Amino acid sequence: MMIREKIKQAVGLLHEFGIDCWITFTRESEINGDPILPYLLPGPVTWHSAIIITADGKARAIVGRYDRATVEETGAYDEVFDFVSSFREPFLECMRKIAPKNIAVNYSEGSEICDGITHGMFLTLQRLLGELNLESRIVAAEPIISALRERKSASELNSMREAIRHTLEIFKLVQNEIKPGRTERDIAAFMQAEVKKRGLTYAWNQATCPSVFTGPETAEAHYSPTARAVEPGHLVTMDFGVKVDGYCSDLQRTFYVAKPGETKLPEAVELGFNTLRQSIEAAKAVIRPGAKGLDVDAATRNLLVAKGYGEYPFALGHQVGRFAHDGTAILGPAWDKYAQKPFKSLELGMVFTIEPRLTVPEHGIVSIEEMVVVTENGAEWLSAPQTELPMLV
Amino acid sequence: MMIREKIKQAVGLLHEFGIDCWITFTRESEINGDPILPYLLPGPVTWHSAIIITADGKARAIVGRYDRATVEETGAYDEVFDFVSSFREPFLECMRKIAPKNIAVNYSEGSEICDGITHGMFLTLQRLLGELNLESRIVAAEPIISALRERKSASELNSMREAIRHTLEIFKLVQNEIKPGRTERDIAAFMQAEVKKRGLTYAWNQATCPSVFTGPETAEAHYSPTARAVEPGHLVTMDFGVKVDGYCSDLQRTFYVAKPGETKLPEAVELGFNTLRQSIEAAKAVIRPGAKGLDVDAATRNLLVAKGYGEYPFALGHQVGRFAHDGTAILGPAWDKYAQKPFKSLELGMVFTIEPRLTVPEHGIVSIEEMVVVTENGAEWLSAPQTELPMLV
Repeated sequence: MMIREKIKQAVGLLHEFGIDCWITFTRESEINGDPILPYLLPGPVTWHSAIIITADGKARAIVGRYDRATVEETGAYDEVFDFVSSFREPFLECMRKIAPKNIAVNYSEGSEICDGITHGMFLTLQRLLGELNLESRIVAAEPIISALRERKSASELNSMREAIRHTLEIFKLVQNEIKPGRTERDIAAFMQAEVKKRGLTYAWNQATCPSVFTGPETAEAHYSPTARAVEPGHLVTMDFGVKVDGYCSDLQRTFYVAKPGETKLPEAVELGFNTLRQSIEAAKAVIRPGAKGLDVDAATRNLLVAKGYGEYPFALGHQVGRFAHDGTAILGPAWDKYAQKPFKSLELGMVFTIEPRLTVPEHGIVSIEEMVVVTENGAEWLSAPQTELPMLV
Repeated sequence: MMIREKIKQAVGLLHEFGIDCWITFTRESEINGDPILPYLLPGPVTWHSAIIITADGKARAIVGRYDRATVEETGAYDEVFDFVSSFREPFLECMRKIAPKNIAVNYSEGSEICDGITHGMFLTLQRLLGELNLESRIVAAEPIISALRERKSASELNSMREAIRHTLEIFKLVQNEIKPGRTERDIAAFMQAEVKKRGLTYAWNQATCPSVFTGPETAEAHYSPTARAVEPGHLVTMDFGVKVDGYCSDLQRTFYVAKPGETKLPEAVELGFNTLRQSIEAAKAVIRPGAKGLDVDAATRNLLVAKGYGEYPFALGHQVGRFAHDGTAILGPAWDKYAQKPFKSLELGMVFTIEPRLTVPEHGIVSIEEMVVVTENGAEWLSAPQTELPMLV
């Protein structure tokens, strides 16, 4: 069903971007499969396989004989060809008939989700198309793949809302577990037990889902929970997400652990929290179709710097989809490593995180991550935003 | 520990194959990571990352700042460089110092496990090396990666033996579940419950692990278990594997379901089973260091054809490792899709499946898959082979 929807959407995108023919070419997809495959196929393929979608609205698949039945059952393909010993023949026959003016292939220097073909497979494709003198017609499929992943349908958004609901519920439950003496690992274990109980899967590698950071002097990101124990006066932050029907949530929440007798937040902690909240609203106000991620990031980054906090050493936000880090456009600064991503215009249906961070000396970090969708009226919350900093005793 | 061992092994392979410098270049490794990464890194990386191993025995890693701590902790790297905004600078500095005569990069037309770099990342690497006039020194890392994955250490073999032990135990237990009225799905569910109970993971996609085929007229392979019910007189086969410490088993077993009053196997079924067993022994007898996969496959294929059975439409066997389908050398015919794989010489420490299949009309298929390791004395069983066809009542 989803596959039929996405193939139909792809045909529209071929027209929008002036592409005749889009080829997804892969093999042993459980080993190094193209990230676009789950949108096109119901399961893995073993041998050289091509999904060929053309601007005339036709979708063809060429797969090994034993992958044929599963592909046919999707009902998404007008023609399914299979082979036992050689991919070459059905492929050449197919391409000879199509004779496309240009051929979009899944590679990109600037966007990892659009960079699904391996170099060896690219060489094979080039060689095969060369037999028909078509190899010079290869172009990058980046615009098609980006749009296909970025412009979320209502049903894709619903899956994400459901993933967010579970995530926020687990953030609520875990508050009872955050107390002096509990370690980052204890807290993570509690959250993972909830994931299991609910029959969910993780939005990213389980070793850092959640990541949990308590107090000052933590690794800050991409690091597994440690045996470091929560202490009174610590800020505790968690980065966590789950998957529903293949779609992710990705959220962060921050809590404060009171010192004995403490009845209100320390001034620096409260100021840090309020400033971070304000910086999230500043970003959200800039998001609308046509805005650039660069400017959204700058709204938050400049505000935090103006208030005397250090610059966070990462992009303010990324898109979310079937991966926690999805899509091409990013809310980030013009850093070399982000290539053209911060310069892309935001579009309707894109889902972004907003995730600034700041340090409160001697207490730890305040780090909050919300999720929004781009609508005609600007950004709309997908996650009910954290508006208060709970003081846990 | 395993990473330090494998990096040491890699240095030896650089010498063996006359390579100065081997670069594994990747980004967002949970999206389209290179299959060699688990041998080199303890977890995923996010930004552009390079693992650079040189013939002088040095291992260097260049990773984003937040991935640094995890990489350093392996103790496997002489130098770890990190960056916030640009991979380019530390990489160029590093390569300028090394100034290698040749640079092995992870691509291959003929071997998917050696084809880890995406085309977009290859273009980036070529461009960066071009700044140092080193781009013409790129060669394929296929020989290094093949050998690193194929020549199994004692500890890798031990993990595989353990995976095989669990698999054979589950094949034993499931026999009580195979009876008229039970569906392929019921049988698969029983086996998957055992996997869960034992805290194991699947050797391949859970939808077809196990695959279960009962009676004639099944999809035969790469197809999820269906609602087809076992009937008296059916041959029932299962293809199944689990992972232990990241290493796979991959085995098939066949059972016969008796008709009411039947006290011995039907003649055609018994003949099919005995012939298949004989064909497995024929392959095993040919396996030794230096033999070619082509000839091993032919021993079985020719025997079955000579006995009047159809040719199985796949390779007789593949290697097993961290993937159920691993390694480059294959026990297969000289078909276009297998490229040079059937022509590679077998080496010490390679682990192969032997998995022929034949059809017994009106009963179903006899399909058995064993696992062997290549030793100085030839093939040695890793799996205790199936020597009898159980008649289930």
